[in-house]
Amino acid sequence: MGRNHRSPEELFSAARAGDRAALARLLSLVERGGAEAREIGGLGYPHGGHGYTVGLTGAPGAGKSTLTSAIVGQLRATGTEVAVLAIDPSSPFTGGAILGDRVRMQDHATDPGVFIRSMATRGHLGGLSLAAPEAVRLLDAIGREWILVETVGVGQVEVEIAGKADTTVVVVNPDWGDSVQANKAGLMEIADLFVINKADRKGVEETRRDLEGMLELSDLADDAWRPPILPVVSTTGDGVAAMWDAVLAHRAFIERSGELQRRRQFRLREELREIVGRRLEQRARELATGERWEQLQRHVFERTLDPWGAADEMLEGVGG
Amino acid sequence: MGRNHRSPEELFSAARAGDRAALARLLSLVERGGAEAREIGGLGYPHGGHGYTVGLTGAPGAGKSTLTSAIVGQLRATGTEVAVLAIDPSSPFTGGAILGDRVRMQDHATDPGVFIRSMATRGHLGGLSLAAPEAVRLLDAIGREWILVETVGVGQVEVEIAGKADTTVVVVNPDWGDSVQANKAGLMEIADLFVINKADRKGVEETRRDLEGMLELSDLADDAWRPPILPVVSTTGDGVAAMWDAVLAHRAFIERSGELQRRRQFRLREELREIVGRRLEQRARELATGERWEQLQRHVFERTLDPWGAADEMLEGVGG
Repeated sequence: MGRNHRSPEELFSAARAGDRAALARLLSLVERGGAEAREIGGLGYPHGGHGYTVGLTGAPGAGKSTLTSAIVGQLRATGTEVAVLAIDPSSPFTGGAILGDRVRMQDHATDPGVFIRSMATRGHLGGLSLAAPEAVRLLDAIGREWILVETVGVGQVEVEIAGKADTTVVVVNPDWGDSVQANKAGLMEIADLFVINKADRKGVEETRRDLEGMLELSDLADDAWRPPILPVVSTTGDGVAAMWDAVLAHRAFIERSGELQRRRQFRLREELREIVGRRLEQRARELATGERWEQLQRHVFERTLDPWGAADEMLEGVGG
Repeated sequence: MGRNHRSPEELFSAARAGDRAALARLLSLVERGGAEAREIGGLGYPHGGHGYTVGLTGAPGAGKSTLTSAIVGQLRATGTEVAVLAIDPSSPFTGGAILGDRVRMQDHATDPGVFIRSMATRGHLGGLSLAAPEAVRLLDAIGREWILVETVGVGQVEVEIAGKADTTVVVVNPDWGDSVQANKAGLMEIADLFVINKADRKGVEETRRDLEGMLELSDLADDAWRPPILPVVSTTGDGVAAMWDAVLAHRAFIERSGELQRRRQFRLREELREIVGRRLEQRARELATGERWEQLQRHVFERTLDPWGAADEMLEGVGG
């Protein structure tokens, strides 16, 4: 059999042994959804739970890609392997294609210790919120210890995806106020760390005070983690080491406090609910077609059956 | 048995015979949802299909209540009976309570040929989008020939509810641009008629040109209904008769063309899907509790079961 005809199981074994093409293929299948994605999820699941995810989010233009690239450089300097998942809900492009901003990541494109992947919507936004955690889970299952998840934008979907990481970094700029006004509350809620990127520009202190003021308002418990605020200049690398130290400190804190496990369990619970919800929706869609459905509708139009009775008859077909 | 202990069936018979207190009680039960609402829906459904609904929507302050009151006056002058359902998703008040703007409707409060009812959210916005059509259906089933549905606001829920009428009137003012900017497209889509209310103010011609320009863009078919634009001064009654003639003309047009039946069938189909969806959601919620669910989750946390497998096991309980 040719390389492109390997089964999910063969691809999974190969990816675990370091075959990047197999991993890329698996990610494409996961992104596409359906039966093969389900199979891959099942193959990977028993192996997962060891990788650590760091989410990075912020307004377009905040310099997330440059920061991600700098973090990758930082990790590679100590020999640490890393995977990057760059998610852009607004882009129609996906897969191996290097997105606009991703160009900067090409510094690391030939480094075998770095795996970079872009994901976009393929037209269905809802799909991404399921496909992204699947992709993360796969990277975890094949043994990647650090997984950086970068989302472009500060809308609800982006914040939701970034908020599903173990440590979430919110990237702002000295003039951040206007660019994220719409979703400041959402960003405050998910942030474990704030990075003021492009900190060589003026306005860093105002931005710090602004963030600290909002942290005051959020009324953190005494023993809670207090999100530090780190000035960084990604283009020169200034502050990147300190920023990464803060990520490590946050990781140590939530591992010690039990918060990491609580977060992961909460995420899994939410995801389970989502999977159940999708399955039910799918069944409802499957039922709401065909001759029987048309017939029930005709009875409703003719008023010989009411809508609730029709729904009940429909749902008799949803048996397990 | 006292008046307040009548069964839904007794209440329904009484309401059909003209008992307003019985009708008010039925509407409260419908609004509350649950088994009694379901029973009332079933009682009414075979009797429905004869009433005609006119939806009125527009930004807060556009003068919808005054217009509605003027229309009621117009109808009562010819002896026509009418029911008014005033829906305010942003208000916490509901039922018999006369809302702020409703005060103007008190002109008709003692007229037995007029039935006025306010509905608000009771905290769950989604509930209203199911309860409102139920209430309309009940008013139809007890024999009301004209049902005016007034929604306050131009958000998605309001536009959706108003758009479910047989004829939808969008109420704007000469300075409408800013107040509804956010949802102009949604309003254009549902409008069968535009009323420029407060037409004694300046800017009427600009508003008319603005609306006509948008109608040009919407690329109507040659044989389609073209929404007329009616200037009205609700406070004096100027233009109300002409506006109501336009409603009658629209009704005649969609009855003749078959569009009325298509609309009603489309609405019923959508509603059926919504009922099926809600039932499934409810089942999912019922399933996502209890010892079995906790146990499945523990298996997922311990990675002896993957999330899809857990979902499958859960869904075995969703039998018909």
